[in-house]
Amino acid sequence: MVIESDPTSVRQALAGAVEAGDVLAAWELSDRARLLRGLADALDEAADELIPVAMEETSLPEPRLRGEVARSSGQLRMFADVVEEGSFLEVVIDTQDPHAVPVPRPDLRRMLVPLGPVLVFAASNFPFAFSVPGGDTASALAAGCPVIVKGHPGHPRLSILTHRVLIEAAQRCGAPAGTIGVILGERAGVDALRAPEVAAAAFTGSMRGGRALHAIAAQREVPIPFYGELGSINPAVVTESGAQQRAAEIVDGYVGSFTLGVGQFCTKPGLVLAPSKSDLVDRLAGAVRSATAGPMLTPAIRAGFVNGLEALKGVTGVRVLAEGVGLEDDVVPTVLALDVPTLLSAPEILLEECFGPVSLLVTYADPEELERAVDILPGSLTATVYGGDSEDPAAPALVRSMQARAGRVIWNGWPTGVAVSWAMQHGGPWPATVGSIHTSVGATAVRRFQRPVCYQNLPEAILPAVLRDANIQGIPRRINGLMTTGPVTAATGRPASGEH
Amino acid sequence: MVIESDPTSVRQALAGAVEAGDVLAAWELSDRARLLRGLADALDEAADELIPVAMEETSLPEPRLRGEVARSSGQLRMFADVVEEGSFLEVVIDTQDPHAVPVPRPDLRRMLVPLGPVLVFAASNFPFAFSVPGGDTASALAAGCPVIVKGHPGHPRLSILTHRVLIEAAQRCGAPAGTIGVILGERAGVDALRAPEVAAAAFTGSMRGGRALHAIAAQREVPIPFYGELGSINPAVVTESGAQQRAAEIVDGYVGSFTLGVGQFCTKPGLVLAPSKSDLVDRLAGAVRSATAGPMLTPAIRAGFVNGLEALKGVTGVRVLAEGVGLEDDVVPTVLALDVPTLLSAPEILLEECFGPVSLLVTYADPEELERAVDILPGSLTATVYGGDSEDPAAPALVRSMQARAGRVIWNGWPTGVAVSWAMQHGGPWPATVGSIHTSVGATAVRRFQRPVCYQNLPEAILPAVLRDANIQGIPRRINGLMTTGPVTAATGRPASGEH
Repeated sequence: MVIESDPTSVRQALAGAVEAGDVLAAWELSDRARLLRGLADALDEAADELIPVAMEETSLPEPRLRGEVARSSGQLRMFADVVEEGSFLEVVIDTQDPHAVPVPRPDLRRMLVPLGPVLVFAASNFPFAFSVPGGDTASALAAGCPVIVKGHPGHPRLSILTHRVLIEAAQRCGAPAGTIGVILGERAGVDALRAPEVAAAAFTGSMRGGRALHAIAAQREVPIPFYGELGSINPAVVTESGAQQRAAEIVDGYVGSFTLGVGQFCTKPGLVLAPSKSDLVDRLAGAVRSATAGPMLTPAIRAGFVNGLEALKGVTGVRVLAEGVGLEDDVVPTVLALDVPTLLSAPEILLEECFGPVSLLVTYADPEELERAVDILPGSLTATVYGGDSEDPAAPALVRSMQARAGRVIWNGWPTGVAVSWAMQHGGPWPATVGSIHTSVGATAVRRFQRPVCYQNLPEAILPAVLRDANIQGIPRRINGLMTTGPVTAATGRPASGEH
Repeated sequence: MVIESDPTSVRQALAGAVEAGDVLAAWELSDRARLLRGLADALDEAADELIPVAMEETSLPEPRLRGEVARSSGQLRMFADVVEEGSFLEVVIDTQDPHAVPVPRPDLRRMLVPLGPVLVFAASNFPFAFSVPGGDTASALAAGCPVIVKGHPGHPRLSILTHRVLIEAAQRCGAPAGTIGVILGERAGVDALRAPEVAAAAFTGSMRGGRALHAIAAQREVPIPFYGELGSINPAVVTESGAQQRAAEIVDGYVGSFTLGVGQFCTKPGLVLAPSKSDLVDRLAGAVRSATAGPMLTPAIRAGFVNGLEALKGVTGVRVLAEGVGLEDDVVPTVLALDVPTLLSAPEILLEECFGPVSLLVTYADPEELERAVDILPGSLTATVYGGDSEDPAAPALVRSMQARAGRVIWNGWPTGVAVSWAMQHGGPWPATVGSIHTSVGATAVRRFQRPVCYQNLPEAILPAVLRDANIQGIPRRINGLMTTGPVTAATGRPASGEH
């Protein structure tokens, strides 16, 4: 079944978003936080209604989906905290300085304001957390922007149902009907991306799709920022000490991580570099043979996996190290083994992400081989170093190499399971991310949907509330270069209480 | 004389930048600040050598160029302060939380790291402040990135000479020879933009040029961020009270602002909306008649101005309100008058920036006409509201409208004279800026050349110094969601002194 929004409903969603944008931008921060918490509560309350539909459309098991609903509502609540805390507005105040050189300085007050309607292209693999109620929606709303979600074709009924839950909750919170919209179908998505009403777009998906949409966003009459999360192989390197000291832990963690969610996570470790002189290879083969995966999200995704796996197996020098077990609809977890010369012989095939439960174990003979392999690794969301202890002599240089290639560098752990928190970074050098390197998870994801505005010599009465002298909201503000927390008065740079 | 770098020197500059990037990224913040101050001192010391060359190549007068050198060295010193203060690293630390729901949280520490070699396309109109030693160079170095400047063809000798001054100073500070490079010529610039060594580009110039380069940056095999500052008409609106109460002040400021630097500033007020029922028009005509400009930067820029002026004059309904005076090589300050219906009849001609000393005075008959005119204003670097007093009833709605269209909103003042400070914003909605909306002036300009990296469970010994538990540098850091200033220890969230 292909569901495609007709042009009229796309236009309605766009018009509704513009109208909602004006209302939301004028809201107090506390109203914005209340909206986010209202959405979180509504999502939790609707879990029993939504999860069966999600199970039907995505083949994902109930516990995973329950966890994902909790993650999504938790994310909405985290952004409510971020909004109330206020740092995300990046308030900077320079009071007038008639003695500044070379020219006197006027009163300048800067903050970030909402960009306007955001178009979100939902992902297949997280029907909640990267879909209608996901991180892009939550962070755009936190920025004060209305959202139009282009639902993923893998779960259209769930998209419509979740949207109904959210928009009813939003309206109960007093938000306009156009605060969150949903559209379906490739053509509808492209039409919306070209529409002048849209101010920014966020995308999670394939490299080909993301690159095409990025080009459309750049070639519009008015170009807009496009934040794409595309492909990532998430390399891991096991040092010699790591392999000696932690073989069992590494094997268990690795197999668990690349098979989690049937290998359909953007942070799946797709390539592991390990020393050839260790028993890691044999242990791994044993562990994979008892691993299970499950059915994939959609027939198209399954077909993509099967083709990708064949392409990897077709490279001379690549052998199947081990395969796991699977029931009738399942795909089978697979680890392919190869050496560094093989990797160097066909990087364009071997370094492309293959979405599904497959990973490459690349064995290196010595540090020189390891270095040559690391040198050709593309940008990734994550990169892991598995070492012995903190004194591991190989660690510092490897961490530096990995930092140059990834947004998150992990020590002695695996990349799946992305914590939603203040410090999380989910986005890395190309092709992990396109557009300026941003994050789509964690508190700073909101920055994608804001733009700076500076007010010069504006009378207090017309200034936005958070820029006035008295810091009634008590948010962190930079005043004349000094970072202040709590209620510091701009005119004096001293705590407000000190003035009484 | 056309000077064009040959492919060999472009390749050398790129290779040098890559080598320098590795060294600079490993430097302490204090070394980076020392480099910026060393460059500032060297620039000031070389002023007497540089300014005569600048005068010869740009026709700009000595006092203006002296001011610009001071502005440029001041900017380098401001970025040294920004580096030492440390907030620009945006350090966020989430310590381990085994009780986090839905999943335990690992130790996550996030900061911004340098992107890598930055290609800067210098502008014509500020041979120091937006050229080799300008804001893009200063902010990229502050981020820890080496810079390759593509010098503007309007001042090639000055570009080479200034580069020599800077790179000698940089080497005295211990920086590698590739820290700052200079290349000349359009082909060299495009070749460098396509080169894999370049990680980001910054551009100040024409809309056509900027748009073409932006497309090249997006279509590279590895797309890179492109920060362009293109065209801006910088509209101003005079309210009825403003015209009544401040006519003389407005006329003086306006004429001074649109003729400053021979109208060759990106913040030149190119269009002023004023009530038709006031004596502003007559006063303005009188003031313009005694205004002077001067010679333009280059013959090509002069030709562009002459053509642009003819196009504006050619629109039916546009009349020359007044012209100023000029010597032989000078262009003549010109104000063109028109009404709102005329503006609405040919917006594609009348709303395009014309670089040089011309401005449009658009008279509105009533608030409805004003609203229709404001509605079609394109994005700009700045927008001004000239009102009566802070109680002006027209002000709040106008400030809101202007904020939607500009990066800096000015009350009762004029946009030229951009203060270099913490709160400055120089960048606005398209076509003022392309790429995500950023600033090319002020402390936050450094953010263009950084990317986030998060370290998960990394041992203290391998963590970057600013992310370790003890905050030896005393920089502002967010710890478990709480903004902290001064030396707060991550592990406890309490001031370090409290632990002794």
